Order: sequence, then structure tokens, then C-alpha cells
Amino acid sequence: MILAAATAHHTEMLLSLFLMFTAAKLMAEVFERIGQPAVVGEILAGVLIGPSVLAWVAPSEITDTIAEIGVVFLLFSVGLETQPAALMRVGKLAALVAVLGVLAPLAGGFGLGRVWGLAHAQSLFLGTAMVATSVGITARVLSSMNLLGLPTSRIVLGAAIIDDILGLLVLAVVSSMVAQAVNYVEITSTVAMALGFVGLLFFAGAPLLNRLVPKITKLRVGPPFFLVSIVLCLGLSVAAAYIGVAAIIGAFLAGVALAEISESRHDLREQTKGLTELLVPFFLVSIGMKVQLSVFTQPGILLLTLLVTLVAVATKFVACGLAVKSLGWRAAAQVGAGMVPRGEVGIVVAQIGVSLGVIQSDLFGVVLFMSVATTLIAPPALRALFAGSRNPDAPG
Amino acid sequence: MILAAATAHHTEMLLSLFLMFTAAKLMAEVFERIGQPAVVGEILAGVLIGPSVLAWVAPSEITDTIAEIGVVFLLFSVGLETQPAALMRVGKLAALVAVLGVLAPLAGGFGLGRVWGLAHAQSLFLGTAMVATSVGITARVLSSMNLLGLPTSRIVLGAAIIDDILGLLVLAVVSSMVAQAVNYVEITSTVAMALGFVGLLFFAGAPLLNRLVPKITKLRVGPPFFLVSIVLCLGLSVAAAYIGVAAIIGAFLAGVALAEISESRHDLREQTKGLTELLVPFFLVSIGMKVQLSVFTQPGILLLTLLVTLVAVATKFVACGLAVKSLGWRAAAQVGAGMVPRGEVGIVVAQIGVSLGVIQSDLFGVVLFMSVATTLIAPPALRALFAGSRNPDAPG
Repeated sequence: MILAAATAHHTEMLLSLFLMFTAAKLMAEVFERIGQPAVVGEILAGVLIGPSVLAWVAPSEITDTIAEIGVVFLLFSVGLETQPAALMRVGKLAALVAVLGVLAPLAGGFGLGRVWGLAHAQSLFLGTAMVATSVGITARVLSSMNLLGLPTSRIVLGAAIIDDILGLLVLAVVSSMVAQAVNYVEITSTVAMALGFVGLLFFAGAPLLNRLVPKITKLRVGPPFFLVSIVLCLGLSVAAAYIGVAAIIGAFLAGVALAEISESRHDLREQTKGLTELLVPFFLVSIGMKVQLSVFTQPGILLLTLLVTLVAVATKFVACGLAVKSLGWRAAAQVGAGMVPRGEVGIVVAQIGVSLGVIQSDLFGVVLFMSVATTLIAPPALRALFAGSRNPDAPG
Repeated sequence: MILAAATAHHTEMLLSLFLMFTAAKLMAEVFERIGQPAVVGEILAGVLIGPSVLAWVAPSEITDTIAEIGVVFLLFSVGLETQPAALMRVGKLAALVAVLGVLAPLAGGFGLGRVWGLAHAQSLFLGTAMVATSVGITARVLSSMNLLGLPTSRIVLGAAIIDDILGLLVLAVVSSMVAQAVNYVEITSTVAMALGFVGLLFFAGAPLLNRLVPKITKLRVGPPFFLVSIVLCLGLSVAAAYIGVAAIIGAFLAGVALAEISESRHDLREQTKGLTELLVPFFLVSIGMKVQLSVFTQPGILLLTLLVTLVAVATKFVACGLAVKSLGWRAAAQVGAGMVPRGEVGIVVAQIGVSLGVIQSDLFGVVLFMSVATTLIAPPALRALFAGSRNPDAPG
């Protein structure tokens, strides 16, 4: 009792983690059984146990951090299954998908905001919050279907990276426009750094690591490749975040650099799987826990929310799909649907808007709902659109 | 920049985790190369990057929580390698080790306190803080030497569990004595619950789980056994903490219950290894980060610190060794050394003393140093004492 009291905070935290994980996996099991994607079940588990419904667990700094570690290792594991050469082959198409997929929602969001009567700056931020795709959800769905090797999957992955850099550019421009101090030098240098970081890692990461293999093998601490992987994954995530792109981009590139090495190491894959299976549910549940259902109590806001969500889905889906229509309509729909989830990136942009005084709490709630809704819509669509697809170079 | 600012807190947290992990593994590598135990290197990495020396990372709620999850999964993985029957065979000896190993430090700490001129209540708390062994460190060393199957290893594991329950009893009695409200009913019920929890899990856990295997196999979410393991590990840790014993006891018992099942599942072991390899370094580094070297600026406190550490080491080592002297002097020394680390348990007791107003910050610093010092002394001793030992039932 006394011991329990002294460690109550720790115990409560362990209880929260237990509830989050167990709820996620129970809902995943239910959703699998009714033929729906497990990720949707896990996000809804977050809505259920979060503040909006049962209020068993509230989002905290700790749950946010563990969620962040979760999505970092998720993108790392996706990177592990991505060969740079294969990503290169779809480079041009991915770039086109990214560019159209940034312009359309930006224009759509801005236009909707103006029509609705929002101020210029608010409308700009609304559009910006709709720009960046969060690739975690799509990656999780395609990975669980064992389809990360498909050309369309690679286009989505590549486009999501370019999209993130473009999103950074848009955000920098829009923020400095709102603050009425457009510093072109700073914006240019930020984007140049981001491009340099991604390019360097993408092209030089794998050859460099492959050369280090004999040194890694000689390490006394073990399992050496797994430990080096963790250091690389965390280190590049931090570096990416400091440069200004999402941490998950760094984690993904760490995985890509290790992809060739990991191919022959079954234990490395199993150990990484252990990490992602523990940590990813916290990422998914955390998204769900952020939903504020109270938004629905105001009819005006409810209508705006639905319109924003509709525009967010339609603009990404149509623009990204059109970019790859040369591959056929099915591929176009696959890529379009894969780019729809906004996840945590839209929320971060909205938070910046709040901190700049441009966005108020009702508009923040709208963006929050749009982010979660686009994240929930994509998985069933992806499952349907990819049904029957086969990984062309599946191992074994 | 703007994006980086909005997510600065997240980024800083990721940076802290990266620094902790990388420092731990670098120091582990150095220590392995100079023939010293890796755990010592990882704890010293914490001292180095912590507030006392470089101040790169400060202990926070988040690092504490991740450290706690780390030690929980460490004890879970130790449990996985422990068959209940093998633990039963050493039951009586383990109980004797636990009883003597609780009484001697309690008496020694109390006596030293009185001789030093501390008040009655302070002396009692000092003794109580020296009671409980923290089995994590010993388990990590023996596991890295692949010696968890040895009879002496099992005695240490079994004794550490009984020791934790006895420590709970001592703490309950001492705390209520200090608060001058000895509630025998509450104390008896707390200890009875703890005993019932441990006994039930220990004897009924494995048979129950073995019966559930066909159901677990039918789960759609995967990898099913790993997911069930995580739920069980987190759930029983929380249950143990609510009852009043350490969370790691629950995690250990979850592992024991799954031991038989895990024997034939190589993937489950690899996935668990992935978790422990990521998380355990945070536990070790966190211990080191707690050291306050400023304690050494007061000569009186410095002397007391050294005496307390000496008594803490000597009483556990001699009392626990004597309890198994029938097995020979080498085994006695192995068990004695294995029971020496106090780790986080002593710190928790001291925190309770602070919250009751019995212990002040200088005495808290003393207990803190004793906890870390006993934790640092044990691994080299264990390596030397177990050198040349072979696991009698090592697989493969």
C-alpha cells in the first residue's frame, strides 16, 4: 500500500500502457474477424479509451513520446524492406504525385476557407494543414498485406518523402507570410538542407554502411547489427527533426540504408518486428485518443468539418491518382488512396497555426478531425484496391 | 525551423533517448574490450551523461518510464528462461537466503545509524532501504553469460522474489511504526495478497496458459504468442504494483508462466530480445543518471556513505552466502554476490522516507549512492565468481 502510493505515478503509467496496448489488440482482433483493417480497429480503440468516450487514458507527454518512438520504428522497418534502386525507378512518377498532391489540397483548402468566410491567413493555414501525407498508416496496411514491394507502394513511399519536403517549404512560406517577414534566404537554406540530407542519405547511406559491415561484425556488444540499427534509426530521426523534416523521414532513410544488409539477417528482422509490434499500437491508439468528439455539438463547425474532410480526401485522391494515370486506373486509385492519410502532420501544422495566433480552437478541432478521419478512411480503401495484388519480388 | 520549434519538445526527447542509448552501447563496447562487464559500462554511461558530469541528459518522467518498461521486459525475458519446477527445487534454500539476507542488512543499517547518532526512525529507514535486492542487474549479468540455468542462479532469482515480499513486510511495519499507527490487519492483508498473487501465478500460471495455447494459435492478429506475452507481461506488472510488490515480480512471473511455451518458439525469443536490447540500456543508464556526486563535498556524509555501502555489501554477501554454505564456498560466494545489488528498490524506500518526513536530502543522497554502488560492485564480482561455469541444461 505504502509502496504502492510512493510508486503510484509509475504504476498508473504502466496501467495506461497496458490499457492502450490491450485495447488496441482486442479491437484489431475484432476488426480482422469482421474483415476490416486492424489499424482502423487500433485507432478506434484510442477513440474509445480516450477522453472523448471512456476517458480511461488521457494523452500525455509520455504516451506521445512512446507513440513517436513507435512511428519512428515503424518507418524504419518499412525502410528495411525498401531497396534504394527500386525507389529510384519510380522517382519521376513519385515526384509528380508529390507535387500535384501538395498543390491540390493547398488550393482546395484555401478556396474552401475563403468561401466559408475565413480570413486570408486562416484559409492559408487550413490549406497548409491539408498538404502533407502521413505515410505511417499506408505503410502499415501495405506491410501487413506484404505488398511493400509493389511499384505503386514504392511510388507512395517516394512521394511521401518528397511531399514532406514540399510541405516544409509551403509551411515555411505560409508562416513567414503570416508573420509578415518573408525571409527567402532562410527558407531557401532550410529546404536546401532538407534536400541535401535526404539526397546524401539516400544515395550514400547504403554504400557507406556496406563498407562498415566488417567493423560492425567485430563489435563485442551484441547483437551488433541490431544495436547499430537502433543507433542509426534514432540518430537520423533526430537529425531529420533538427533539419526540419519529420523524424520519420530520417528513420525511413536509416532503414533504406540498412535494407541490403538486413536481407540476409533473419534475426535482425525478427528483433525489429519485436520492437514494432510492441510500439506501433501506441502510435495508432494515440491518434485515436486525440479526437475531440465535442466538435460535433456546433452544427456550423460540424458542416465545415465534413467539408474540409471531403476536400482533403478528394483533392489528394484525384491529384495523386491523375499523376500516375499512365499506369492504369487501378494503380491510379491505389496511389491516390495511399496518399490520403494526414495523421500527425496536419495536427502539427495546425498547432503552429495556433501558436502564431492564426488558428483558434474550433478550427484546430476541425483539422484534428480531418487528420484522424482521412487516416481512418484510407485503410479499408487500400485493402479493397490492393485485394488480389501480389508482391512481385516476395522472398520465399 | 518553425516546424522544428513546434516539435522541439519531441525532438529533444528523441535526442535524449539517442544519447542515452548510444552512450550506453559505446561504454558497453569499451568495457567488454577491457574485460569488464558491459552493464557497469552502461551504468557509468548514465553517470557520465547525467547531471553530475556532462549534464547532457537529465532524468525525467519520460526517461524513468522507459527505464521502468525496460526493467519490466528484462525480468520478463529472465522469467522466460526459468522453469517453475527448477525454481521449486531450490525453494527452501532460496527462502533461507531471502530471510537471512533481509535480517542482516536491516540490523546492520539500523545499528550503523544508531552508532552514527541518527534518530531511531531514521536508522530504521536506513536499514529498510538496505533490505531489498534488485535482481535486474544480476539477472542481466548471468543472462549475458548464459548461466541463468545454474542452480545458484535459480537460488538468487527465487530469493529475490521472496526477498521482495519480505521487504514489503518490513517496509509496511517500519512505515506504520514511524507514523505511529501500526495497523496489523492492513499489514497482514497486504502480505497475504502478495503471497497469494505470487503463489497463484507461480503454480497455476503455466498450466493455465498451456491450456490456452490452441486459442492463442487461432488469433488473427499476429504474431499471436508475442502479443499475448506483452499483454500478460504489462498486465501482471500492473497487478503486482497495485498489490504492493515490485512490478518486475509480476513481469518475471509472466515470463515463468510462458517459459514452457517459449521453448519451442524461436521467433518469440528473438522478438523479446529485440525489445530488451532496445529498452534495457535505458534502465541501466537511468540508474547512473541518478547519482549525485555532490554528496562527496561534505566529508561527514562521505564517510557515512562509504560505511553504509560497506555494511550494505558485507551484510548481504555474508548472510546470503552463509545460507547456502552447504553447497560449498564458491556457490556461497556466487549467491552472496548475486544478492548485493540494491538498484531502484532502495531508492524507492528512501523516497518513502522522504515523503514521511523521516529522511532528509543528505541521507537520501547516501542511500542513492549505496544503491548505485552496490549495483556497480556486483557485476565484476559475479563475472569472476562464475568464470568457467557452464549452464547444465543449455539448449543446443
